[in-house]
Amino acid sequence: TDLRGFSGISERLTAENVVKLLNIYLGSMAQVIDRYGGSINEFIGDAILVVFGAPIFHEDAAQRAVACSLAMQMEMERVNIDCIAAGLPRLEMGIGVHTGEVIIGNIGSKRRTKYGLVGRNVNLASRVETYTVGGQVLISEATAAELGDRIETRGCFQVKPKGFASAIMIYDVFAIDGPFAVRLPVQDDELEALPQAVSLRVSVVDGKDAGGIEDIGWIEALSETRALLRTPLSLDPLVNVKLNFDPQISADDVYAKVLSRQADAPQLVQIRFTPTPAGLARALRREAETKAQ
Amino acid sequence: TDLRGFSGISERLTAENVVKLLNIYLGSMAQVIDRYGGSINEFIGDAILVVFGAPIFHEDAAQRAVACSLAMQMEMERVNIDCIAAGLPRLEMGIGVHTGEVIIGNIGSKRRTKYGLVGRNVNLASRVETYTVGGQVLISEATAAELGDRIETRGCFQVKPKGFASAIMIYDVFAIDGPFAVRLPVQDDELEALPQAVSLRVSVVDGKDAGGIEDIGWIEALSETRALLRTPLSLDPLVNVKLNFDPQISADDVYAKVLSRQADAPQLVQIRFTPTPAGLARALRREAETKAQ
Repeated sequence: TDLRGFSGISERLTAENVVKLLNIYLGSMAQVIDRYGGSINEFIGDAILVVFGAPIFHEDAAQRAVACSLAMQMEMERVNIDCIAAGLPRLEMGIGVHTGEVIIGNIGSKRRTKYGLVGRNVNLASRVETYTVGGQVLISEATAAELGDRIETRGCFQVKPKGFASAIMIYDVFAIDGPFAVRLPVQDDELEALPQAVSLRVSVVDGKDAGGIEDIGWIEALSETRALLRTPLSLDPLVNVKLNFDPQISADDVYAKVLSRQADAPQLVQIRFTPTPAGLARALRREAETKAQ
Repeated sequence: TDLRGFSGISERLTAENVVKLLNIYLGSMAQVIDRYGGSINEFIGDAILVVFGAPIFHEDAAQRAVACSLAMQMEMERVNIDCIAAGLPRLEMGIGVHTGEVIIGNIGSKRRTKYGLVGRNVNLASRVETYTVGGQVLISEATAAELGDRIETRGCFQVKPKGFASAIMIYDVFAIDGPFAVRLPVQDDELEALPQAVSLRVSVVDGKDAGGIEDIGWIEALSETRALLRTPLSLDPLVNVKLNFDPQISADDVYAKVLSRQADAPQLVQIRFTPTPAGLARALRREAETKAQ
């Protein structure tokens, strides 16, 4: 797991509030993980590394892992109620699941060893996670193969993670059937056309270095978490972009991930904010309405 | 710190050997870190998160951190002697150093808390590390500012890490003066022209997804760790590339990072292998000699 955009969020909070926020989040997640028999290997800042099927072997580890992930996403609603009650911002989480052999051992130095997890399958699990946007549970084809028709997905896409020889398929899961049945509620989040397109600067974020190619763009439609962006830049699905608006709309850099590109209109892409900046949708609508008058 | 290309290396070893390799490496590094008063916050797979100046405050934390990093790079020679003696592959490490305030607290769930470190400065330290190639110590401008003329560098470059508002300067350090003086030995690693250029496929690795743009290229000169690559692709410094050779030369994907581009010959870039694949330089020279005859 990972909290989308947590670097940005934590910059705007006091140290005390960051610790409070993390403890609300991690405490709730730990309870859900416990319920599904997962074992927390590590908290790494805002990320959680969870293992199913080790040290205690579960035949149904893949089912438990996916059901647990969906339950964790549902639990985020309660986490956000607690956050808002404490005057803290909303959080959005992405989860990646992968199934495979890992190397488990006491790893470290003489004075300090830990029950460590290494190997390509650990890396692959965390790479699957990097493709998520807030609210998503993405699973690798290895996990999907174990679950067969027990799962329902919104679709799948192919990725070729760095350091891995071949491309893999990733599935966007929203429900699992069987003894651990969980189903995410359907989100009411329709794109709504703006009365007038709002212009902005778009730049491609190449991995962790945000100094990539740049061009102009226009937001044409909007929901709470997504937008329709027109830009001469050629943006493939999964590409991360940085959006810069007129300071009146948003003084901060806004980050988003390309969800899809229309085959018949390649200059039009659907993007998902990562995370959704508070108040951005409202500021954009206001701007579009002012301009349309 | 991070071991460059460790995913790839660990795939070719047994689980037992991966654990053995990590313990040789982490054990040696822990001793060096101890000597400079650093405190190991975390082993994350092959990565080590080290803090200087907390929980015990050191006025000279930045000096200690940089001196320790240089000493760790020097220690890698002994680690590699041990690795090779045990029939294990050579390792290459990159280190990133950053100075700034972090949030330290007991973070986690009710049943499991740890002395955790969060905040933008923790993320920035690990981002600085991602720009390294094997053998490098890169430090942020904040760390460089604390050290003034105490350090000697091979140069500096500007990066704009994702999630950070402004670009920062990064320095490639090879020596520090003063009470913790350390100097890396000069590497004898000159580029040597091949008698005949060797062709290959080059693809740009966009962050963690290696499915980017692709073209042909030619290796024109070579050292143990670097190469001169001619390609019609426009490759900026710090871009990661995947190289695919004729299977006779290398059946594996080879990864490299662009070090520099000549202003007068933009199709010619210098690259650094990440890590240097064993035997690749020899196989390339043999191929070039055969072709040149």
